[in-house]
Amino acid sequence: METEHGSVMTPVFMPVGTSGTVKGIHQRELAEDLNADILLANTYHLYLRPGMEVLQEAGGLHKFMNWDKMLLTDSGGYQVFSLADNRKLTKEGVIFNSHIDGSRHVFSPETVVDMERIIGADIMMALDECTPFPCDYRYAKRSLELTHQWLDRGVKRFNETENQYGYEQSYFPIVQGSIYKDLRIRSAEKISSLEMDGNAIGGLSVGEPIEELYSMTELVSSILPGDKPRYLMGVGTPVNLLECIALGIDMFDCVIPTRNGRNGMLFTAGGIINIKNEKWKNVFSPIDPEGTSFVDHSYSLAYLRHLILSNEILGAQIASIHNLAFYFRLIKEAGEKIRSGEFITWKTKMVKKLATRL
Amino acid sequence: METEHGSVMTPVFMPVGTSGTVKGIHQRELAEDLNADILLANTYHLYLRPGMEVLQEAGGLHKFMNWDKMLLTDSGGYQVFSLADNRKLTKEGVIFNSHIDGSRHVFSPETVVDMERIIGADIMMALDECTPFPCDYRYAKRSLELTHQWLDRGVKRFNETENQYGYEQSYFPIVQGSIYKDLRIRSAEKISSLEMDGNAIGGLSVGEPIEELYSMTELVSSILPGDKPRYLMGVGTPVNLLECIALGIDMFDCVIPTRNGRNGMLFTAGGIINIKNEKWKNVFSPIDPEGTSFVDHSYSLAYLRHLILSNEILGAQIASIHNLAFYFRLIKEAGEKIRSGEFITWKTKMVKKLATRL
Repeated sequence: METEHGSVMTPVFMPVGTSGTVKGIHQRELAEDLNADILLANTYHLYLRPGMEVLQEAGGLHKFMNWDKMLLTDSGGYQVFSLADNRKLTKEGVIFNSHIDGSRHVFSPETVVDMERIIGADIMMALDECTPFPCDYRYAKRSLELTHQWLDRGVKRFNETENQYGYEQSYFPIVQGSIYKDLRIRSAEKISSLEMDGNAIGGLSVGEPIEELYSMTELVSSILPGDKPRYLMGVGTPVNLLECIALGIDMFDCVIPTRNGRNGMLFTAGGIINIKNEKWKNVFSPIDPEGTSFVDHSYSLAYLRHLILSNEILGAQIASIHNLAFYFRLIKEAGEKIRSGEFITWKTKMVKKLATRL
Repeated sequence: METEHGSVMTPVFMPVGTSGTVKGIHQRELAEDLNADILLANTYHLYLRPGMEVLQEAGGLHKFMNWDKMLLTDSGGYQVFSLADNRKLTKEGVIFNSHIDGSRHVFSPETVVDMERIIGADIMMALDECTPFPCDYRYAKRSLELTHQWLDRGVKRFNETENQYGYEQSYFPIVQGSIYKDLRIRSAEKISSLEMDGNAIGGLSVGEPIEELYSMTELVSSILPGDKPRYLMGVGTPVNLLECIALGIDMFDCVIPTRNGRNGMLFTAGGIINIKNEKWKNVFSPIDPEGTSFVDHSYSLAYLRHLILSNEILGAQIASIHNLAFYFRLIKEAGEKIRSGEFITWKTKMVKKLATRL
C-alpha cells in the first residue's frame, strides 16, 4: 500500500491513536522502536478535542502530533453509534450528544468528509451505521440502505473536494449488513462497484459469535476486489488476525494490544499471560526473550506485574509497547509466510500456541 | 558524591521513583535522555508493594527496576506520618495501617535499616518522625528526642549489618525540630556528631511559611559539616532549589516536576506555564525551544495541552520529562555558576524569571 506518507507491506496492523496519541507511547517509540507505518485516529474524538479549528491551524493531524508516516481516520460512525441513547439517526445524518459535556452535534456524510479533509489522514473512512449485535433483519436491511445512501453522498463530497495540505487522500467505503449473507453480498457488490482505493468491512467484532465473524469476512472478502486492500475494522486478537489474513484481509486495527495491555494481558508467541497472576510474582526473567522491542529485554515479568498491580503509568507503557511489538512481529511473519507459500501450515500451528493461557 | 553506582556532581536533583518507577518515564529515558544520576525510592511503598521478599529475590531494587546508577531510599517515616489517624507512635517504633488494604504493620528504626539493606539503595535514610506544621514546641521537642533515640538505634543496626549485594551503602541521619531554632540547632549538632557520609534536613516543606523553610535551612546548613552532602528532603520549586543552593544545600528530591507536570504545570527558564490555559490552544511552537530533552522539540504546546485536557497518558509522560529535564538543566547551571563564582548574581536574576506566570 502506497501513500505520500510512505508505503507499507500488507498485511498490516494499525495501532489505535484515538485522540492523536497511541496511549502511553511516544511517537519516537512508534517510529523507531515499533517501526509502525500507519496509525488510526478517530474523527469523532478529534472533532470534540482538540476540535477542527485547532487541527486546521496546525496544518493537519500529521503535523499536530508530529507523525510523518501514514494515518487513517475512522469516520466516527462506530463511536457515535456506541452512544446508544445519546444519538438520533435521521436520513440527513446523526444527531448526538458529546460523551464529554453532553453538548449537541450533527454528523453527516458530507461534514465527516470535510472533517477528514481537515484532519488530513492519508486514508479517510466513510460514515456508516455500525449495526449492533443482535440486529433483526428488517433493521439491518433499512440500516444498510441508509449506509449506502450516505456512502454515495460521501463519495460525491470526496470527489468535489480537495486535500488541504498538498498530498493525496483516499476514501474507503465500508461493507455493512450485520450477519445476513444476502445483505453482506449486496453491500460488498455495491462497495466494489465504486472502485475506490481500498475497501473496508465494518459491523463485525460487535458481539457476534466468532464463527459469524469468520464466515461474513470470508464471504465479503471473496467479493471485494483482490487487487485493493481489504480492511477488517476493529479486529482483533492475534488468533483473529491470522484467521482473517487467511480469509483475505490486508488491514487491521484494534485496541486489544493497548487496552488489554494496560489491564495486564500480554500476548506472546507461546500464549497469553495475565501478568496480575501470582505465578509471575517472582519471575525475574525478561518479559519476552524473543521480543523485538526494548521493553522485552529491559524489564522483567515480576517488575511489570508490580507496576500493573500498583497502577503505575509505566506498567501501561511497557505492556502496550510489548503487545504492539508482538502484533507487528506476528503480522510481519504472516506476510513472509504468505510470500514463501507456507502460511496455512504456519497459521495452523500458531493459532494453537497463541490461544494458550500461560 | 561517589558511590559504587557512579558519581555525581552536586548540587543534584533526584527524581522521585516512589514504587521503583518515576511515573510515566522509562528507565532508558531517565538514563539516556535526562542523564539522571540518582533516583529516590520509598521504603514504605516498596515494603507494601512488591514487598521485601520479591526485592530480595530480585537481588535488590537496582536489578528489579533495571537501574544501574545511584539510588536513595527514603525511610518511610514521612509516608507513615502522613497516614495521620491510621498510625500510632510508640517508643519502639510506629504501628500503621496500609493505605492500600488497611492491614497492620510495624516499622522500627531497626526493621527500616533491614529493609533498606534488602532494597539495596546506595544511600539509606534513617527513620524519623516528620512533625507536621503547625506543631507546638512541646510536641516538637518530645518528637525530636524520639527521632534522636531512633537514630542511635538505626546507626547501631546499620553498623552491625552488612550490605547484601556486594556494594557499599551509606546511612544518612535527618535533622528535625520543626521551626524551633534551639531544637534545630540541637538536632543539627547531634547529627553532625555522628560523622555519617551525608546529612539530611527533614520536616520542612510541610506547610510552613517559605521564610521559615529558608531560615531553618540556613541555620541547619551552617552547622552541618560542609565537606559532606547536605540533603534538603522534599524541596521544592525551581526557585526553592536556587534559594536553598545559596544556603548550602547539595541534594534535593521533590515530586513537583512530575506531579505538577501531570496536572499541566510546566517549568521553563522564562517562567511557569499552565498548559490548560486557553492561551496555549493554538500555540504550535515546540514546548521549549531551549529545552534539552527530545519532548521539548518533538511536541508543541498546543498538542501537549490537548493531551493533558484529554487525560491522555502521553500528556503526563511529556510534561514529566520536560519538567525533569528543566530541573536538571537548572541545577547543572547552578553548579557551573558556583564553580565560576557567579552564582549569586545569576540566582538573583533567575528567581525573578522562574516565578513569572506565563
